Formats: sequence, C-alpha cells, structure tokens
Amino acid sequence: MDPVMRDFVIGGAGFIGSHLTGRLLQAGRGVTVFDNLSTGKRSFLRPYEGHPGFRFVRGDVLSLRALRSAMKGCGFVYHLAANADIMRAMKDPGLDFYQGVVATFYVLEAMRGLGLKPLVYFSGSGVYGDYGLRSIPEDAGPLRPQSMYGAAKLSSEAMISAYSHLYGIRAWIFRPANIIGPRPTHGVIYDFIRKLKRDPRRLAVLGDGSQSKSYLHVEDLLDAVFLAVRRARAPVNAFNVGSRTSVTVREIARVVAREMGLRRVRFDFGRGARGWKGDIPKVRLDIRRLSRLGWSPRLNSREAVVRCCREILGCEDRG
Amino acid sequence: MDPVMRDFVIGGAGFIGSHLTGRLLQAGRGVTVFDNLSTGKRSFLRPYEGHPGFRFVRGDVLSLRALRSAMKGCGFVYHLAANADIMRAMKDPGLDFYQGVVATFYVLEAMRGLGLKPLVYFSGSGVYGDYGLRSIPEDAGPLRPQSMYGAAKLSSEAMISAYSHLYGIRAWIFRPANIIGPRPTHGVIYDFIRKLKRDPRRLAVLGDGSQSKSYLHVEDLLDAVFLAVRRARAPVNAFNVGSRTSVTVREIARVVAREMGLRRVRFDFGRGARGWKGDIPKVRLDIRRLSRLGWSPRLNSREAVVRCCREILGCEDRG
Repeated sequence: MDPVMRDFVIGGAGFIGSHLTGRLLQAGRGVTVFDNLSTGKRSFLRPYEGHPGFRFVRGDVLSLRALRSAMKGCGFVYHLAANADIMRAMKDPGLDFYQGVVATFYVLEAMRGLGLKPLVYFSGSGVYGDYGLRSIPEDAGPLRPQSMYGAAKLSSEAMISAYSHLYGIRAWIFRPANIIGPRPTHGVIYDFIRKLKRDPRRLAVLGDGSQSKSYLHVEDLLDAVFLAVRRARAPVNAFNVGSRTSVTVREIARVVAREMGLRRVRFDFGRGARGWKGDIPKVRLDIRRLSRLGWSPRLNSREAVVRCCREILGCEDRG
Repeated sequence: MDPVMRDFVIGGAGFIGSHLTGRLLQAGRGVTVFDNLSTGKRSFLRPYEGHPGFRFVRGDVLSLRALRSAMKGCGFVYHLAANADIMRAMKDPGLDFYQGVVATFYVLEAMRGLGLKPLVYFSGSGVYGDYGLRSIPEDAGPLRPQSMYGAAKLSSEAMISAYSHLYGIRAWIFRPANIIGPRPTHGVIYDFIRKLKRDPRRLAVLGDGSQSKSYLHVEDLLDAVFLAVRRARAPVNAFNVGSRTSVTVREIARVVAREMGLRRVRFDFGRGARGWKGDIPKVRLDIRRLSRLGWSPRLNSREAVVRCCREILGCEDRG
C-alpha cells in the first residue's frame, strides 16, 4: 500500500467516522482508524475488518505520543474525535475542553511533527451561536457559541487557521447540521427509539418539541466532503452542510412512533424552546457555498429522518 | 475591606496589568494581583506596595488550585495573562496554547467553582486575521487568526461566550490595537530603544517598515475599559480599542531615534511586509462601538508613540 494513499481517521469507529471509513476503502484508499472506543464501537467497523487496506489502532487522541506514532506514514487526516455526551458536558465543561480543544491541538501538533498537511475537520453549527431563523453563511459574525461543544469547535477552527498560516496545514472544515443514519451513537432519533423500546406507551421529549433544525443523511454529508476536498483549494475552506429544509422535534417524535408501528404513544413534552442548556433551538444554515460547488442533498430533512428510522430499526431487527 | 469590592487581576504585574492595578486602587478598590512573574515584574507594582488595599500573590494560572485559592473572596476578575514571547511562540505553538487557551479555561473554571460572574478579558485584534486596510467592526466574520496568539484569543472568547450562556458569566472583552506606555515588557518601541542603547549607529527593523497599525496609550485603553464596564450591560460585550490613526514601523523608528537624540542611525529594514510570521501587517479597527458609549482616545497614534518614547526614556534615565 502506497503510504501517501493511506488516510488517518480519528474517531473512525464513531457514527460518521465508520461511514467515512467505508467510503474511503470503497474508493481504494488505505485507512487507519484511530479511536479510543469511548463512543465509537469496534462493531461499527466489522464490515471493513477483512479489507486489505484497513487498519485499526485503539488509542486516545489525548496521548500525543500514541497519536503521532499511529499517524506516521499516513497522508490525509480526518479528525472526527469529540465528546458525544452532551448531558454530562453540561455539568463538566472539561469534557469538551479536553476532548475538543486539547484533542485538536494534539492532532495539529502530531501533523506538524510529521509534516502532514491536509486535514478534514468536522466542526459544527454550534460555532455560530443563536442566529434564530436567520440563514447563516459561513462568513457570519459575531461567533457566540452557547455550549462548550460549540466553543470547542470554534477553538479548534481558530487553531487550524493559525496552523494553516504558520505551518502550511491545508484544511477543509465542515459545519454540519444534524447528521443521521445507521449506526448512531447519540442524537434525537436514536434516543427516541431507545426510549420507545423501553416504554412503547409514552415518550418524554426534551424541550417543548418546537426545536427546528435541518437533518442530513450521513451519505449526503460524505458526498459533500469528498466533493469539497476535490474542488475547494484555499488554505482553509469552511462549509456549512445541511439541507434547505428543516423538521421539528415534535415531527420527529411522530415519525419515529409511526415507523415503530406504535399508535397510542403519549408524548410528554418538556418546557422551554431548548432541548438542553446550550442547545440552539432553531438553526438555518446557508448552504450556497457548497451548492456552488455542485452539491445538493439527495434527501430533505423529513426524508432523511424517515430513512434513518428505517435503517436503525432494520439493523436492530437483524441483530 | 469589603470582599465584594476586591478585584482580581491575573497578569497584574505585567505592562497593562500594573497600570490597571494602579487605576483600580486609585478608584478605591481592593486589588489582588495574581502573577507568575514570567513576563511581569514585581518592580512594576512597587508604587502600590504600601497601599492598604493591595495584595500580591505569586502564582501560575496553569495551577487551577492556586488560582482558585487566590481568587476566593474577590468579586471582579480581570484576565490579562498571556504569553508575551512572540518569537519563541512561532517555534512552539504550545506556548500560546497553554498560556492562552488552557489559562482561560482555568480562569473560567475557577470563577465557576467560586460563583464569580464578572470578567474583563483582554483579547486582541489577532482574532480577526488579515482584513488588510478594511475597517474591522467587532461583528466581522470570518475570523481567521494567522498566529497562535490570535487563535488563543479567539478560543478564549469562544469559551467565555459558552460560560456566559451556561453559567451566567458576564464579560467585557477588549480587542486592543498596540498598547504602549511606561513599563513595557515587549513591543516595537521597547525593542527599538533597547537595540539603539546597545548600538546607537544602526537599527535592525523586522519587516520592511511598512507595517501600519494603530497605537494607543495605556491610559486611553483603561479609560475605555472602565467606561465600557459601566455602560455596556449585555451578557458578553466585545470592543475594539484603538485610535482612528495609524503609524508605520518606519515612522516609529524615526521617532525613537529622534527622541533618543540620535541623528545618524542607519536603519536596516528587513524584507517582506510582515514583522514575523503570523504578524498582521496592516490593521484598521472600527471603534464606533466604543465611540457610541462616549469614548475617544486622547492621543492619536503618533502622539502616543512620542509620549511613550519619552516616558520610557524618562523612567530609564531616572533609574
């Protein structure tokens, strides 16, 4: 395997990371997945275990030494590691600080040490803060994150920008809407399905259900990533990724119940427009920058939610 | 001393911090200076040592325990700690990462632990990146720092924004131009004077001398800080602080030589528009937000440079 062709996927055993790994292998690239399996699961990678280009390294991004040693010989870095436990993070801001901010610093240091240049970073719309129903372009200001998750993403982007200027890192930064699909580790659909399996008669919903966001299928996200990496050539390229449509949490609750064949679910909505403190209840991402490159999502938000339900339920039924 | 009246000045032995300390004591407040004396000097605080409200704690912001223990009983936090060694930081991005990003996280964690709310943070125009000669308002985007110093400032602002939303921190963030005045620890004027004392016949200048920025006297900065804290009441308030005028590095070199009474200095200009990698050669800050509060600088950039030269030379002559 030509070492230049080997990609390094940090957080590659997670939801998005495992799908990314599959697509990279499919495209003929070698892939080293680096993951501490705190959120990601080894089983998500089972479909690729036999592939000759696939390699798994269990390691923690907070060990610079382990990171650098595993990264050696790779050419392209995809960084998806992040804390996924939003509820715990509310009580302990250190979670996002270490697994978000410090982690990205270590990724950049490892790349600098090894002389690696290209980096794909999975950021999030949390960098913007609360713009309400205004459509947010990538160049929007001010940036006022309301969660440590968002703050960690913005900090990471800031360091990537500096490293790009100082050390020649070339970066593609993606700020996705809610990404959904098979093998989720968290998120609203996953959560609703779990709760309804436990108690099919009632579903407790965080917030009043009016939260309204764009949902994108993971395959649509990955199409955007590969297209942008091919076509966008600035030292640092940032892209919103979402669909022009949105769905409320209330609608998602109904879709999930229906897809599970449950007719008489009592929905217990919480109070307040936010699912949790730091949640941005309404987000509208301007996706014109990606559209101009020729990308558009194949599924709208509602279609993505329906398909995702079926995929999750289908997988779980199988086993 | 009423504990609510005691202010906590992190980095209070530094250039700006020591002036701030003087002004706070003058206004009748108690002040605890917390400084590791890596850049700051105990001698900068000599004028205040006898003051009954003054207290000095030698401690490192990277020790959360020391920070929290010293902060106990204070009401208002001023955070000025930062790495001041730009040249070393170019080779070691960890300097700004630890002394900038991690330091601010610890400050916020100490405040959260103690239930302190008000924070004044000294950020910098480095958060914006290179806008050339375009005037930059506080809400500008995109934010693309080109140095780790700028990245650390933006990361700090991002975390302050999240802590404000999550834990009720109230913050005043200042993004100053080049602040100058007596007791400097670094900066172009300080640097030129030191070099010319060593060799009065020639002066090596970093970059081609065309770098053009706004220079503000430290007393003008502090007027802005106190006014903004009194008048701006949003949860997070960000302000550019500079003057509408600018001076080139070439002009500063001439002023310094003249003020030192040196007539035949040979100026050896470097190449390139930047003083160092990550330096933003031309910066124009839009200061309308502060103007609307009723602030304007008493000295323009050139006057500030002249006065600063005289202050530094006067102090050094005296002792």
